[in-house]
Amino acid sequence: MPFVMDGKCSTNTAGKPIRCRAAIARKPGEPLVIEEVIVAPPNSREVRIKIICTSLCQSDVTFWKLEIPPAIFPRIFGHEAVGVVESVGEGVHEVVEGDTVIPIFLPDCGECTDCLSDRSNLCTKLPFSVSPWMDRDETSRFTDIKGETLYHFLSVSSFSEYTVVDIAHLTKIDPAIPPNRACLLSCGVSTGVGAAWKTAKVEAGSTVAIFGLGAIGLAVAEGARLCGAKRIIGIDVNQDKFELGKKFGITDFLNSRNCGDKSVSQIIIEMTGGGSDCCFECVGLTSLVHEAYASCRKGWGKTVVMGVDHPEAMLSLSSFEVLHSGKSLMGSFFGGLKPKTDIKILEKRYKDKELQLDKFVTHEVDFDDINKAFDLHREGKSLRCVIWMKK
Amino acid sequence: MPFVMDGKCSTNTAGKPIRCRAAIARKPGEPLVIEEVIVAPPNSREVRIKIICTSLCQSDVTFWKLEIPPAIFPRIFGHEAVGVVESVGEGVHEVVEGDTVIPIFLPDCGECTDCLSDRSNLCTKLPFSVSPWMDRDETSRFTDIKGETLYHFLSVSSFSEYTVVDIAHLTKIDPAIPPNRACLLSCGVSTGVGAAWKTAKVEAGSTVAIFGLGAIGLAVAEGARLCGAKRIIGIDVNQDKFELGKKFGITDFLNSRNCGDKSVSQIIIEMTGGGSDCCFECVGLTSLVHEAYASCRKGWGKTVVMGVDHPEAMLSLSSFEVLHSGKSLMGSFFGGLKPKTDIKILEKRYKDKELQLDKFVTHEVDFDDINKAFDLHREGKSLRCVIWMKK
Repeated sequence: MPFVMDGKCSTNTAGKPIRCRAAIARKPGEPLVIEEVIVAPPNSREVRIKIICTSLCQSDVTFWKLEIPPAIFPRIFGHEAVGVVESVGEGVHEVVEGDTVIPIFLPDCGECTDCLSDRSNLCTKLPFSVSPWMDRDETSRFTDIKGETLYHFLSVSSFSEYTVVDIAHLTKIDPAIPPNRACLLSCGVSTGVGAAWKTAKVEAGSTVAIFGLGAIGLAVAEGARLCGAKRIIGIDVNQDKFELGKKFGITDFLNSRNCGDKSVSQIIIEMTGGGSDCCFECVGLTSLVHEAYASCRKGWGKTVVMGVDHPEAMLSLSSFEVLHSGKSLMGSFFGGLKPKTDIKILEKRYKDKELQLDKFVTHEVDFDDINKAFDLHREGKSLRCVIWMKK
Repeated sequence: MPFVMDGKCSTNTAGKPIRCRAAIARKPGEPLVIEEVIVAPPNSREVRIKIICTSLCQSDVTFWKLEIPPAIFPRIFGHEAVGVVESVGEGVHEVVEGDTVIPIFLPDCGECTDCLSDRSNLCTKLPFSVSPWMDRDETSRFTDIKGETLYHFLSVSSFSEYTVVDIAHLTKIDPAIPPNRACLLSCGVSTGVGAAWKTAKVEAGSTVAIFGLGAIGLAVAEGARLCGAKRIIGIDVNQDKFELGKKFGITDFLNSRNCGDKSVSQIIIEMTGGGSDCCFECVGLTSLVHEAYASCRKGWGKTVVMGVDHPEAMLSLSSFEVLHSGKSLMGSFFGGLKPKTDIKILEKRYKDKELQLDKFVTHEVDFDDINKAFDLHREGKSLRCVIWMKK
């Protein structure tokens, strides 16, 4: 089979396998290895894209470290990225060769009841899963040079110079946006901003409490700031997060280790004269969800669950409190955003200099140094580390 | 002290204690005893009303049977009623002698942040409680003829010819409305209708599932019907409830004892092609809340908790499901209704022949036969039994 080396986004490569470099996770938690891989041409409704840059997100790390199912190896991780369309499969009319696109792990088929409704972002036709395959035919487009199958991750697998993504997972983006900003819209920042904007529908003048000031929590703050929240309380165990948080609109900081004999919720209720209008749990601890729920304003408070620590984790809430508090509990998956429509709105807000993406990028590395991105993440030093395929 | 026998709603009785008849619960679960009692004049911001008729609601029965705190005896139960203002205390400008009013257990002070907001129905100034006292000074207005204090219930105590109610618990109503319909707006029917209208905001054309077809569940159906729900699925263990339910708009019935090897939620998901837009748990069982949550439409489904079996009951939900389902969980207390404003809207909808109250009244008895109302309730024979103070 004639391989094409490092396709240049021309029709020369269309329809043919491409040989290029990818960072392969061969065993849980072990450094990725950059190897040559074969990327098959896109099937029907699929698109092959050349990745410009990608960034490391928490889910990559979680599944890279995971030793039990649904963990599967060897796998190509990465799901936050921006790229250029190299070729398209049959039936793809939405993008053409040369278009700049961002892949999004959450599908948007554009045909099912959910995708046609503005109330849901959970596609029914191609339901989200952590499957290691392409969505429609449960096969892989990746093999290593020995012919071994390499598994996909979250329908994206962007730690590769080329990848194949279903059209349901792609959104066109203005190529004028710097790639190291555009890629942020692909997952984490959008998730946090969307949780404030679309899930909680934060109102102007309201009070927001954010439990956990990692990248997602800070993106929630950015979203709350954009919605006009008057007071944004950040809660974290790391005091340094206050200075950082100020850049994202955090107005008050609460170190949950310095609460004395009071609970976090008691202090938030005192600070706000009754509780926060919206509370976001961005750590993934069920105990913190309880504290967030307790911190919400009686009468109308909303608690938004942004993470989960393990698949069997159970949330317990007092039935009496649920009945008598007027509060509501909801989850936010990809920030409640509809990939094909809402990302365009965030893109516009970035171009209008409202949504501030720059401050999320704390580090940038070359593809060859991809394991540095994992190190920086483990050390808690980076919010977003952008990995450039070629500089 | 000069007692006035059976005041005729004239100024002759204002400012003086009234001696009249009340049904007293002296011990948990024992038949009420009709005795003469002394009803003190209203204090500041209080109103003394002559009850026209009252109806029996589940909470009366629950607290009448309760043997542990917050149970307290001797007590005058009853909180669903309609009456006429006999006299008012200082600072009451909202009603005058002769006005027809309904007492509402949920306060609406009209002054606090919650009462001034259209987002909350949970008054902060006079927070709801099951206290045995008047709201503002924690004393009773009732004594028996031996001088023993009789305790209030839910700030209403309508099982008495006269009672004293804080102005925050009173809403004026058109005297042209038949009393045995007006009293229904005081608690149960409003709660159910409000849960569909105000809490879940049921949309026209949507699908609703109601777990438990007692009076509250049927009132939810009535509310969903008014909101234009296309399909209203009733779930109960009693097959007879289907015929009854049809009168309230139930279109489909599911006997939860006849589900074979499937769960109720599996069947509802099959029936609806994905789940119900809104699910209401009207029994007060945490296990049913889980089933209701599972029966909700992924993407946008709302689960509304309408009851609680005991104060320590805990709801458990899968964190993963909360995060990934797009569903929300909320409670509904007094149907999310604001007593002073929303009841007027329901009153109008009754007068416009939209809200159908008549079908809720299955029995009517004289005050002397008040224990029959309890018997009918225990036997599951009545939806609402109206108790007339005088015919």
